[in-house]
Amino acid sequence: MPTIVVEVMPKAELLDPQGKAVAGVLGRLGKTRFTSVRLGKRFELTVDGPVDEAVLAEVRELADSVLSNAVIEDVVGIHVVGADSTVGVSA
Amino acid sequence: MPTIVVEVMPKAELLDPQGKAVAGVLGRLGKTRFTSVRLGKRFELTVDGPVDEAVLAEVRELADSVLSNAVIEDVVGIHVVGADSTVGVSA
Repeated sequence: MPTIVVEVMPKAELLDPQGKAVAGVLGRLGKTRFTSVRLGKRFELTVDGPVDEAVLAEVRELADSVLSNAVIEDVVGIHVVGADSTVGVSA
Repeated sequence: MPTIVVEVMPKAELLDPQGKAVAGVLGRLGKTRFTSVRLGKRFELTVDGPVDEAVLAEVRELADSVLSNAVIEDVVGIHVVGADSTVGVSA
């Protein structure tokens, strides 16, 4: 069954305490080439049946309304992995 | 500056309570074509300077040791976005 991946990140202008914490760890490990770290979410939705435009439109709507909080997050990617995918995707 | 995206998911065989909770919401909304939902993490590491094999090897090591818990999670993707990327990547 195909899987649709939805990627959600905190809005760029917002403080990202979790990302800052990870960046702090990298700094203490001496990994100073990484100037910032941001931490978001990655959903994998398994779909029963082929993925067509209608399914993708439904996922885009769910991504905005259920899988992310539009006030503090952006949906940065939606793509299909696995069999039966008939369409390309952009977030 | 280039950004390296690291994607981490819970191991497939493990219970994913957060994913189950989201799947429950989709079910209650009548979105029954989605048979399962899994929820993982998406990191964006901003790199000061070009991304070459050495940087990617460093990120791969950090992905396994710092950005994920190898007991319960798998690193499922590492890819470069943005300028100055000179190499392709696979997790």
